[in-house]
Amino acid sequence: MSKILTERIKVLVRFNEADPLGMVWHGHYIRYFEDGREAFGSRFGLRYLDFYNHGYIVPIVNVQCDYKRSLRYGETVLIETRYEPCEAAKLIFHYTLYNAESNEIVATGQSVQVFLDREKHLLQFTNPPFFEDWKKVWHQ
Amino acid sequence: MSKILTERIKVLVRFNEADPLGMVWHGHYIRYFEDGREAFGSRFGLRYLDFYNHGYIVPIVNVQCDYKRSLRYGETVLIETRYEPCEAAKLIFHYTLYNAESNEIVATGQSVQVFLDREKHLLQFTNPPFFEDWKKVWHQ
Amino acid sequence: MSKILTERIKVLVRFNEADPLGMVWHGHYIRYFEDGREAFGSRFGLRYLDFYNHGYIVPIVNVQCDYKRSLRYGETVLIETRYEPCEAAKLIFHYTLYNAESNEIVATGQSVQVFLDREKHLLQFTNPPFFEDWKKVWHQ
Amino acid sequence: MSKILTERIKVLVRFNEADPLGMVWHGHYIRYFEDGREAFGSRFGLRYLDFYNHGYIVPIVNVQCDYKRSLRYGETVLIETRYEPCEAAKLIFHYTLYNAESNEIVATGQSVQVFLDREKHLLQFTNPPFFEDWKKVWHQ
Repeated sequence: MSKILTERIKVLVRFNEADPLGMVWHGHYIRYFEDGREAFGSRFGLRYLDFYNHGYIVPIVNVQCDYKRSLRYGETVLIETRYEPCEAAKLIFHYTLYNAESNEIVATGQSVQVFLDREKHLLQFTNPPFFEDWKKVWHQ
Repeated sequence: MSKILTERIKVLVRFNEADPLGMVWHGHYIRYFEDGREAFGSRFGLRYLDFYNHGYIVPIVNVQCDYKRSLRYGETVLIETRYEPCEAAKLIFHYTLYNAESNEIVATGQSVQVFLDREKHLLQFTNPPFFEDWKKVWHQ
Repeated sequence: MSKILTERIKVLVRFNEADPLGMVWHGHYIRYFEDGREAFGSRFGLRYLDFYNHGYIVPIVNVQCDYKRSLRYGETVLIETRYEPCEAAKLIFHYTLYNAESNEIVATGQSVQVFLDREKHLLQFTNPPFFEDWKKVWHQ
Repeated sequence: MSKILTERIKVLVRFNEADPLGMVWHGHYIRYFEDGREAFGSRFGLRYLDFYNHGYIVPIVNVQCDYKRSLRYGETVLIETRYEPCEAAKLIFHYTLYNAESNEIVATGQSVQVFLDREKHLLQFTNPPFFEDWKKVWHQ
């Protein structure tokens, strides 16, 4: 059974991220997901740069977000990023955003990434060797 | 049977929307969706401002995007926005993004919005009267 | 005497560009400058891509903006970009932003760019040959 | 003589802040300035929110930036924000951005803000009382 891998970071909501209604514009949550994914990657060795240095890029092929509550300028969002183990040649992450003060869930979402080599060919059936090694190390 | 309502606009990909790999960063597609939704709203009288002037705000509660091909700085994206008729007190839009030169589909997606009144109470079962009128006018 | 070269484009203020006070966040004006510069470049053959295709990049080394009046979501900004002829190996542009409805000046600004070759060496004293030709063609 | 007030924070350069050349797009530096100003404001009680809660807004009327070196995705920028004491009814900040690893200066800049009351009238000759008190407390 695989261990559940998650990472949490806090991000301050910037003035320039709130819309005329005082709430964070919904498109910025995709940025928070990336902040979460990068924090996860920093801890577990799976950043964009790690893939890139091994000769791969990992474009997003699907992203979705469910918005539950609004965030406002001056509030802090706690981003929890969870890796989903998966047989296919894909990277799947789940995100839960909390209001860091109230602990209420603000949004949930997920993203799916695929692997391209330097010639931008899709790896359809096999993972990059570097990522296979990663799975073994982390029991995924 | 309801008439299918769509609107199309072209948007030039900006230098500052492309990422270090030369491709439009995936989060910007959410901005393109909003450009499409606003173009639709301008034509059919359903902009944020129209709702706002009638006492309602229409926050996004769900957004999703499937990425098929990359866009690059200097290219033009054609955004097609289609309204989905719906019984519930919701606004649903579907988006298809094309590379305006090649006509290839770049991405597809959708968004769901709900209605809040000025006190930020959710309209769960009924549409704003203004929107009911709109539906009649447009046979939706 | 050199001819004055200018270009004008209109840009719609997006919902996601306005801040919690309902006014366009000041940082987005830098984006409008780039929209103006690119429109100028499209007309006169001086886009980022034109330089890039000739082997040069033209990074911004100075930008400044004076804010006179606010812009709001739903308004249209008219961006006027003027090229300033200059002896040194630099590209200087001046920007005047107008509210397209009232014709009032919203902001003024300028940017300075330098030339780097593909090895990222600065061209300190000479212009790229391609740009020298451009100057002759346009009497600058 | 007034005490020099400064604050320093570190900000990680995000993937989505870098342009197709791999360098942070110049417009994002205005965002870094705001990050610095807000960090300063958090420490010294001068955030947007502090002004707002006292009945004032403090729009930017001038911003400028000199770019010295590029920043790349994965690097960390150290933002130093310094308050400039000033007789006029203005808020002036100076910014120095460093590459946090190499300590090289990446950019310098400044911003000027004015005071508007809730009716958006400019305070031309007098500071808000709240800000006069602040000056005394901090010997400015």
